[in-house]
Amino acid sequence: MSVLLSFKDIQENIHGSTSAALPTSSPATTFTELQPLMVHPGNSQEDMTEKDTAPPGGASTLQKARARFLRGVSYFSGDMEVFGKWMEKQFILLQLLDWVLRGAAQVMFVNNPLSGLIIFAGLILQNYWWALNGFVGTLFATISALILQQSRGAIAAGLYGYNGILVGLLMAVFSNKGNWYWWLLLPNVFMSMMCPIVSSALASINSRWDLPVFTLPFNILVCLHMVATGHYNHHFPQVLIQPRSELPNITWAEIDVPKLFMSVPVGIGQVYGCDNPVTGGIFIVSLFISSPITCAHAVLGSAVGMVSGLALAAPFGDIYFGLWGYNCVLACIAIGGMFYALTWQVHLLAITCAFFCAYLGSAIANIMSRFGLPACTWPFCLSALTFLLLTTGTKKIFKLPLAKVNYPEKNLGFFWKMKKEEKIEKAEAEKKEREKQQKAIDEELILNEKEQLRLELERAEEGGTQEEQKATEGEEIRHNDVIEIPVDDCV
Amino acid sequence: MSVLLSFKDIQENIHGSTSAALPTSSPATTFTELQPLMVHPGNSQEDMTEKDTAPPGGASTLQKARARFLRGVSYFSGDMEVFGKWMEKQFILLQLLDWVLRGAAQVMFVNNPLSGLIIFAGLILQNYWWALNGFVGTLFATISALILQQSRGAIAAGLYGYNGILVGLLMAVFSNKGNWYWWLLLPNVFMSMMCPIVSSALASINSRWDLPVFTLPFNILVCLHMVATGHYNHHFPQVLIQPRSELPNITWAEIDVPKLFMSVPVGIGQVYGCDNPVTGGIFIVSLFISSPITCAHAVLGSAVGMVSGLALAAPFGDIYFGLWGYNCVLACIAIGGMFYALTWQVHLLAITCAFFCAYLGSAIANIMSRFGLPACTWPFCLSALTFLLLTTGTKKIFKLPLAKVNYPEKNLGFFWKMKKEEKIEKAEAEKKEREKQQKAIDEELILNEKEQLRLELERAEEGGTQEEQKATEGEEIRHNDVIEIPVDDCV
Amino acid sequence: MSVLLSFKDIQENIHGSTSAALPTSSPATTFTELQPLMVHPGNSQEDMTEKDTAPPGGASTLQKARARFLRGVSYFSGDMEVFGKWMEKQFILLQLLDWVLRGAAQVMFVNNPLSGLIIFAGLILQNYWWALNGFVGTLFATISALILQQSRGAIAAGLYGYNGILVGLLMAVFSNKGNWYWWLLLPNVFMSMMCPIVSSALASINSRWDLPVFTLPFNILVCLHMVATGHYNHHFPQVLIQPRSELPNITWAEIDVPKLFMSVPVGIGQVYGCDNPVTGGIFIVSLFISSPITCAHAVLGSAVGMVSGLALAAPFGDIYFGLWGYNCVLACIAIGGMFYALTWQVHLLAITCAFFCAYLGSAIANIMSRFGLPACTWPFCLSALTFLLLTTGTKKIFKLPLAKVNYPEKNLGFFWKMKKEEKIEKAEAEKKEREKQQKAIDEELILNEKEQLRLELERAEEGGTQEEQKATEGEEIRHNDVIEIPVDDCV
Repeated sequence: MSVLLSFKDIQENIHGSTSAALPTSSPATTFTELQPLMVHPGNSQEDMTEKDTAPPGGASTLQKARARFLRGVSYFSGDMEVFGKWMEKQFILLQLLDWVLRGAAQVMFVNNPLSGLIIFAGLILQNYWWALNGFVGTLFATISALILQQSRGAIAAGLYGYNGILVGLLMAVFSNKGNWYWWLLLPNVFMSMMCPIVSSALASINSRWDLPVFTLPFNILVCLHMVATGHYNHHFPQVLIQPRSELPNITWAEIDVPKLFMSVPVGIGQVYGCDNPVTGGIFIVSLFISSPITCAHAVLGSAVGMVSGLALAAPFGDIYFGLWGYNCVLACIAIGGMFYALTWQVHLLAITCAFFCAYLGSAIANIMSRFGLPACTWPFCLSALTFLLLTTGTKKIFKLPLAKVNYPEKNLGFFWKMKKEEKIEKAEAEKKEREKQQKAIDEELILNEKEQLRLELERAEEGGTQEEQKATEGEEIRHNDVIEIPVDDCV
Repeated sequence: MSVLLSFKDIQENIHGSTSAALPTSSPATTFTELQPLMVHPGNSQEDMTEKDTAPPGGASTLQKARARFLRGVSYFSGDMEVFGKWMEKQFILLQLLDWVLRGAAQVMFVNNPLSGLIIFAGLILQNYWWALNGFVGTLFATISALILQQSRGAIAAGLYGYNGILVGLLMAVFSNKGNWYWWLLLPNVFMSMMCPIVSSALASINSRWDLPVFTLPFNILVCLHMVATGHYNHHFPQVLIQPRSELPNITWAEIDVPKLFMSVPVGIGQVYGCDNPVTGGIFIVSLFISSPITCAHAVLGSAVGMVSGLALAAPFGDIYFGLWGYNCVLACIAIGGMFYALTWQVHLLAITCAFFCAYLGSAIANIMSRFGLPACTWPFCLSALTFLLLTTGTKKIFKLPLAKVNYPEKNLGFFWKMKKEEKIEKAEAEKKEREKQQKAIDEELILNEKEQLRLELERAEEGGTQEEQKATEGEEIRHNDVIEIPVDDCV
Repeated sequence: MSVLLSFKDIQENIHGSTSAALPTSSPATTFTELQPLMVHPGNSQEDMTEKDTAPPGGASTLQKARARFLRGVSYFSGDMEVFGKWMEKQFILLQLLDWVLRGAAQVMFVNNPLSGLIIFAGLILQNYWWALNGFVGTLFATISALILQQSRGAIAAGLYGYNGILVGLLMAVFSNKGNWYWWLLLPNVFMSMMCPIVSSALASINSRWDLPVFTLPFNILVCLHMVATGHYNHHFPQVLIQPRSELPNITWAEIDVPKLFMSVPVGIGQVYGCDNPVTGGIFIVSLFISSPITCAHAVLGSAVGMVSGLALAAPFGDIYFGLWGYNCVLACIAIGGMFYALTWQVHLLAITCAFFCAYLGSAIANIMSRFGLPACTWPFCLSALTFLLLTTGTKKIFKLPLAKVNYPEKNLGFFWKMKKEEKIEKAEAEKKEREKQQKAIDEELILNEKEQLRLELERAEEGGTQEEQKATEGEEIRHNDVIEIPVDDCV
């Protein structure tokens, strides 16, 4: 928990939403911890530079060491913004490598080249040929986006690469020609280069509802390739996938509990089509580096998928193989803090979405198998889009504008800042309201006074000497002075 | 016909669009009858209260009795607005029951708890277990909508319940485990609770075209459940549905005409998955109570479906079983007066839509059977959405704004009121135009007069004495008076 | 090339975007040729009339003859605007014939009754019965659009007929009852009359993204009819289409090169479901008459389809039969100059789209065959829509607003005119900028002068006689004159 905390602090520190509160941070829960960081929104930039050069004098050596450690961690956690900015001035090929690595990690919504590097390590551990295809896919998808002059910011965040890596990987995984069938690189390059076109087209549609395209381009293109060639093809045959046509043999006594628990990391590995639990474990580490919230939801999603598989009487083999997990992993990450600001209501929604996604996954797998196709990540895309289209009356479920989506911790910062501003505005509005009421009361008093004066005047006029009239004129002038005070207040 | 008439009068009476015309209503057709009711739009509220307390003095005892009878009927026809308002102050559980009953009737676009009660009676007559599942579905869908803080007005109108009842019913109907398999309530509750989420998501999309979601959430969720588990499942097996793979044996001599006629009520019953003609008949009654136009179109739609089945050489068994009817019933109701204002062109459009829906029904049933799925109400949803997206140049086909959709009779009232207002506006515009022309003519006359005066003046000046000039000055003043008259008109 | 050139000149001439440049046109390439035509946008109308009555005096007899020839050609190329305008005053049945013929040609995006006539000739050559069904389909689709009061301009351009002809033709092609089964006309008429409804509904959706509906209504309605009846139907049985379930026997030695080349015109013929290469050749001629760019892209698309078929190891029979070509033909025409302004980048994009379309075609054919359906033109629709939804940062890929889409040559004219205007605007903006800078410099000079005068004045005042002051007053007045010059410039 303490580590989790530090990550957050640092990320906030780096990304300029905080820092004044850092030295006083106590080991409370994450949520109460981050709240005070938002106390001074707006002046955080100055705070940060000030703080970097001169930490408050009273801080102990321990606190200093801790701050230094946190600053160190901040350089490779979150979205590595500092590194990204440094990269902008580097040689184009080095930049391209950065984009490819970020693209590899973006499959899990992580915008972090270090996570991408670790993921590639995991892929190499699984299968050299697959890793190569994944790399080729990411590379050509990014190049194609550059040719088509897509938004440079999106390319640099790896948003044009993640469909490419999945296209490359899964085309290799489902090829029936085995490893090192070099001709496969041809459709791989073609399909990867189609990724930005399909992404851009889908974004034109989804942006009307402020929705991301998720991995829909990958789903479309891999299914396209697989069904266009099919199992019975001379050049690019696919593995044979057939629908279930008899009752599976499920004996609850035969259940293998360790394998069941292993299915959680395997489910995370299956996001990239990998069935090696070690690879899955490496992916968990890569997630943790960038964003602990993402990591927690990934594990949670995989567990939900496993439970759903048992509830719907799926063959144990499918569950062990992680086929029930990977969609739930992605859905749970997407809803749990990525596109919604994380509150406990959103956390519950993310779990609901994971269950729904598991159900949908079984349905889509059954339908797709009729065409010899795997489920790909259609279930994740459809369930996450459904849950993102949801509109509710509660403010606790807050969908971030797509342009403001970052990683969960930063999203939370944005959300709290917004809430703080709302609260301040509300307080100000209340204050004004109170002042207004006060003024109304004052004015009434003045009016009463004026009325009294007028009555006096009338009485005086009845008396009727020249001197008395002079006196009332003076009164009136004094009265005007009194009236002018609230007028000044108004201005 | 007379009864039909009375219903309308009363509904209009209750919902404040009429009443001054009531005592003079003659037994003409419905359409000519309702038209005069719109004569005084805007002041109907006062009229109503006035009328309620003091009916016109000259009314005979018969008319009084009739008015009293109509008022009585009005309390349980239409959308029972009075009852709904009374309900708002009741205990929450009683309100929930109202919402559930309205939800049950909303499947047929009827917002009436009495109709819902009768429908539940029909369901119980068909099968206890199905009725229970339907009730559970409606209840949990409504509860889920409350949890998700959806619009209270929509919940109170049963708009979050109708998908729930269908989900509950059809999951029971298509379960292969037979009746009283209690575990089925688990997926039933889960899927029912997903209804508001899917409804809300679809509404986010459809609202861009001002379209309703119809029963799409039900279609999606039931198909999801059925295909996720399938026929070969240990926990929740589905009945086996297989595609046709040989020429059906159709001998026209064997046709059973009484059964063919029975297929009309059976078709209406199949909207709720019921094949009992008595249940279908009960449903017809429940429709008639709320809205005779809806009822007429339901019967018409079922008949169109039956004819289409014969035309496309469907096996007689399917036709007798009502499978060709239920989608057409819903499509015909939706187009015929519900989302379009009923004119005879719209009536023809509704019949066309029913034929199209029958065609589409056959197509979708064939496709879905490949996946072991029934057609559900996909054909209705798709055909009705297509016909609602239609844009034409004619004003006779008027699509009501979604927010103004009520029951057909009230929709007609809205349409006529709008047309009346348009006519008045047009008449006023014409009147203004005519006045303007008149004024232009007047001004021209004045100008001519002025010109003449000027000429006279010139002549006079040529004459040149002081006295003559004075006279012309007087003339000019008089002339100015003449000019000022149209200026006053303008103001 | 020279003929190609003349067509363009004439089309431009007729459609009022050019003419002053005509007499000086040299046999350069098409692109450099057309560019100067845009030099005088705006005054082309006057130019044209001027030119029509009096060609420049110095033109030789050859040039005159050429101009006359070009004018003659212009009457039946492009969209035959002159003929269309003449038609507006004719008898309604004659107009209807014009609309039907334009509808027949609109399948290939050609708005030309002569092309339509030639296409019908090609159809008759292929099969009388199919041609009759196509005619009936176009006729009833157009009539239905008239009944539904769709936009008269769109009807007159044949935009409601092209889905009708395809529905009619393909229902006849895929009917298993053989030719002259007259009952088929019943569903043919019904489905044709549904075309405008489905078109209008889809247009409501697609117009949000400024996209055309292409042949989606045809795809939907023919698939609907085929799957609703199916192979096993008494009234309207369809030919049996089954998925591939074994490795096709492909021996590269057996390849028939002449047949492979014949597959290019056959592919174009297959747009209308015709496998006769002569019919395909006739269609090529009909395209060439209206728009050479369209014709070139049609041939290119068909060739791309053929190559893709070989690359994806398709059975040779399918390739010879043109099944790999027709979608690519349409996709290549749509992207290559029809909905994008033709630049070489767009030309490359069109080829990419054709390859993507071929891939997609294979995928969709495999999926549809599971339901006993042909691929229809789904692959074209989906790939073209995808490529039209693409957004890029480059100005070289310019998507025309849907309302401005015409035939490729005219689209180019629009694009160049727009670019010209942009250039002029930019030049003017630059000029203004320069003037502003100049003025700023001038003003600074004046200010300096003024400052000097003031200094002189001060010095003079120090001197202090009455006469000197008078002189400075004169100076000041002169100085005001100087200042007023730039002020006048501003106005």
